[in-house]
Amino acid sequence: MTGSTENVRTQFFDYDNPTRPLKLRVGPVLPRFTLAYEMYGKMNSDKSNVILVYHAMTGSQHAAGINPHVPGVNGRWTDEMKVGWWNDFIGPGKALDTRKFCVICANYLGGCYGSTGPASINPATGRRWGPAFPVLRMIDIVNSQMLLLDYLGVKQLHAVVGASIGGFLCLLTATKYPDRVRIVVPIGSGVETTVYQRILNFEQVTAIEADPNFKGGDYYDGPRPDIGLALARRIAHKTFVSLDALKERARDEVVSHKPPHGWYEMNHPIESYMLHQGEKFVKRFDANTYLRIIDAWQWFDLVAEAGARGFLSLFARCRKQEFLVFSIDSDLSFEPVEQAKLVQLLKRAKVNVMWITVHSEKGHDAFLLEPKLFSPHLAQVLGR
Amino acid sequence: MTGSTENVRTQFFDYDNPTRPLKLRVGPVLPRFTLAYEMYGKMNSDKSNVILVYHAMTGSQHAAGINPHVPGVNGRWTDEMKVGWWNDFIGPGKALDTRKFCVICANYLGGCYGSTGPASINPATGRRWGPAFPVLRMIDIVNSQMLLLDYLGVKQLHAVVGASIGGFLCLLTATKYPDRVRIVVPIGSGVETTVYQRILNFEQVTAIEADPNFKGGDYYDGPRPDIGLALARRIAHKTFVSLDALKERARDEVVSHKPPHGWYEMNHPIESYMLHQGEKFVKRFDANTYLRIIDAWQWFDLVAEAGARGFLSLFARCRKQEFLVFSIDSDLSFEPVEQAKLVQLLKRAKVNVMWITVHSEKGHDAFLLEPKLFSPHLAQVLGR
Repeated sequence: MTGSTENVRTQFFDYDNPTRPLKLRVGPVLPRFTLAYEMYGKMNSDKSNVILVYHAMTGSQHAAGINPHVPGVNGRWTDEMKVGWWNDFIGPGKALDTRKFCVICANYLGGCYGSTGPASINPATGRRWGPAFPVLRMIDIVNSQMLLLDYLGVKQLHAVVGASIGGFLCLLTATKYPDRVRIVVPIGSGVETTVYQRILNFEQVTAIEADPNFKGGDYYDGPRPDIGLALARRIAHKTFVSLDALKERARDEVVSHKPPHGWYEMNHPIESYMLHQGEKFVKRFDANTYLRIIDAWQWFDLVAEAGARGFLSLFARCRKQEFLVFSIDSDLSFEPVEQAKLVQLLKRAKVNVMWITVHSEKGHDAFLLEPKLFSPHLAQVLGR
Repeated sequence: MTGSTENVRTQFFDYDNPTRPLKLRVGPVLPRFTLAYEMYGKMNSDKSNVILVYHAMTGSQHAAGINPHVPGVNGRWTDEMKVGWWNDFIGPGKALDTRKFCVICANYLGGCYGSTGPASINPATGRRWGPAFPVLRMIDIVNSQMLLLDYLGVKQLHAVVGASIGGFLCLLTATKYPDRVRIVVPIGSGVETTVYQRILNFEQVTAIEADPNFKGGDYYDGPRPDIGLALARRIAHKTFVSLDALKERARDEVVSHKPPHGWYEMNHPIESYMLHQGEKFVKRFDANTYLRIIDAWQWFDLVAEAGARGFLSLFARCRKQEFLVFSIDSDLSFEPVEQAKLVQLLKRAKVNVMWITVHSEKGHDAFLLEPKLFSPHLAQVLGR
């Protein structure tokens, strides 16, 4: 399966409605914001063939095809961004078949690829928001994308799909807006923030905030907190790839003995590989956006954010929907036990659910790297 | 089983022998150094009843009893240091029975509890060594302790015991000095640095070196790199305790919402607990020592450091010894598969080995916390 080479471009949805502002869960109201989004395939006449795809933490709206340029993202549209991150899943004849479906993906509110975020200009001051950008919760990201669907005239999604924390957004969409979704596909995700995730996220927050260039988030006029952000990325990266796969990937790495920061000299390809992962990442991502999303992850509360009293009543809302839940056996970020919890809760609430575990040596990132493991069931469930 | 309340004191072994200096594996020769050590129990007439215990990475020479004060350690002898770290294992009638055995434990060369390390005065300059302290390898720590045994007149140890990276030191002692050891007891250890350890260690190095107070290791006249060292400790700590145990421990934690460094506000007892672990640690440990030990860990090469050509010939040296290998089923730092490798290599080399897996919910730290799980086999094997 090879990806599409079709050129696509990012579109911008500008929401500006003082009479019906976006009410954030913790922060104030946002009367104005922009979402960067892309569309693949055409909407049918009653707009009933739309699939909304949520990207993962550091993804973008650019899920398929080739997008050589996104305006206004300050050099963060590096070469690795140009091919859509789910290009092997979305396209004519693929799992998300654009001959039948219209697939939409939007950059998170708070993001750094064209949606309004901390690096955007605050209209009230004419300067970048920086640390003054409002606190976000997962439900705010979902609510902002529902306004995009309103604008596009999409009343009910054929499906909502998302991997990793994109799965959190799937579940929020399905439970907060049960009438807007027919099929729900969370991949390598869960119903809550795990202890391990919480610990790693907290490490990452402190790694970024302790970087002297971070300056409390007010760094846009000076050097960027690249060392802290790169460390944060490395802390996370080791959970995205199985350790065997990491070892394998590092085999091709040129071993560097240079000291990355000071006295310590590297001595193993794994170190060079990890250093490189961090260095590559900081070129394309904004530290404030990273912190906002981690913050929303740490505070994630599916039941409360969807406005339910408990898991049973929450998922009882989904009885008209159909769930396809994917586990990856080697996933270290969202271990299969997390999807087991989700499936158990769905079954207790008498929701129609199919659960598939794919066996991969690639870990969490299998959802990006192994289309063949997911495509048949995706195509089957979406095609109904 | 309750610990001894007997007061003990640290002794100091000053090595000063320009004609037979300690040759370091990478660095220069050290004509002079000091080791801080403690002894529990009495040597018999032929000094054949001595057990050498290697502490783990951030441990000290103070393994048993109460030691209220160690001179010259710059306030690092905090309250948590005062009770010996293996007090439930060493004493009259305990697993390492001081009515029968004389137990010795020494602070690593490069350490910060009285042995010569980066915070010590460099005799050549009259100032603290800091970053100029020589590079260390695991075998250097072993060799320095063999000089201590020479000084004490101990030709052959009854046993050598060590957990975690202390197990690396056990294996080096047994293989480099096979005639000096009768019984070898590595606990929750392995024969090599794992990929996961290597990644976590590298994160820790960069966390420390990126702290602006670290100044390349030359920080003794200014503020200490506490933020970087605390982050390093947290990165490691999560592998010492099982996640279930962490969750359980955090239950009693007062939840703080304070931002540890900047914008991010904590929101869960796990975060408060982890923050506290880091803050507690930096009061008692020196960042340069931490880096030296991690460096030796990253470079650890059992075969090469013991001067062998391969594992088979290495362990063939141990055929007159007796091994007792412990695994902890919930160990996330040195997983049981690491001890399985060790045992397999020993068996191939036809070495006498007994392998015991203890079942604990406490993870790697079970070797400190659960004396009852280890004591019967320790007593049996040592008592022979």
